[in-house]
Amino acid sequence: MGIHTYKAASVLKETGMMVESNVRGFKVIADEPKALGGTNMGISPVEGLLCALGACQCMTARFFAMLLKIDLTQYQVDIEGDVDARGFLNADSGIRPGFQEIRLTVHVKANAPAEKIAELLALVESRCPVGETVFNGVPVVVRHIQ
Amino acid sequence: MGIHTYKAASVLKETGMMVESNVRGFKVIADEPKALGGTNMGISPVEGLLCALGACQCMTARFFAMLLKIDLTQYQVDIEGDVDARGFLNADSGIRPGFQEIRLTVHVKANAPAEKIAELLALVESRCPVGETVFNGVPVVVRHIQ
Repeated sequence: MGIHTYKAASVLKETGMMVESNVRGFKVIADEPKALGGTNMGISPVEGLLCALGACQCMTARFFAMLLKIDLTQYQVDIEGDVDARGFLNADSGIRPGFQEIRLTVHVKANAPAEKIAELLALVESRCPVGETVFNGVPVVVRHIQ
Repeated sequence: MGIHTYKAASVLKETGMMVESNVRGFKVIADEPKALGGTNMGISPVEGLLCALGACQCMTARFFAMLLKIDLTQYQVDIEGDVDARGFLNADSGIRPGFQEIRLTVHVKANAPAEKIAELLALVESRCPVGETVFNGVPVVVRHIQ
């Protein structure tokens, strides 16, 4: 119940943009659409980040709904995020390469009093692990092996 | 070439921890291992974040290697990140619910002079969109529809 270290490994395929990641035996393909030089065999990494965030919000809602004994009948999160490609292409642009803003629209239906649903939504906002990570940022340590 | 808004939608399935996300017609299943109340049908959201980061590092390397005319023969990123579950379960713990640190081990092989490889690695570190997002954080705006 203390600290757990999650692990993944991502390998760039021989040509093109395709990347295969492995997590506990699961294989995840990332790619870019053809317009961006890929072969469109999977979602792109920035989309992967949005999915991870949306999924984490949903699971966090399930967990705390069980704890609060709320009968959750719908929980859907629509996620969108803005990236300005000029930040990626040109360091002098002064534009950040990453997301500028992420917006979540949460559709929730539950058989529970309004104040209990409000309590649930507040818990999801403050406790969602991926949400808290992307909102506050996290130290990233990089090591190179050549 | 300016701002692009990426979109995804995540839906909590009827029971358990499973979440189905949709991105441009791609379906992505997230789940938790059985020990954490799931059915282990896919990677978890925190693992999804690590995969998105690893994949983005690899694609960014591919892009700038092409630009720098570097013949990249290997690019693999091993990613690990620490989460302390006490931050998720107990707000009074003073422990953050998200990642405390993420570590990247980048294995790179290329037919290029050492200083060109160093230039490539520096570009990946500063320009990777997912990396820059999780390192610096991003404003997240939440709206609820009941």
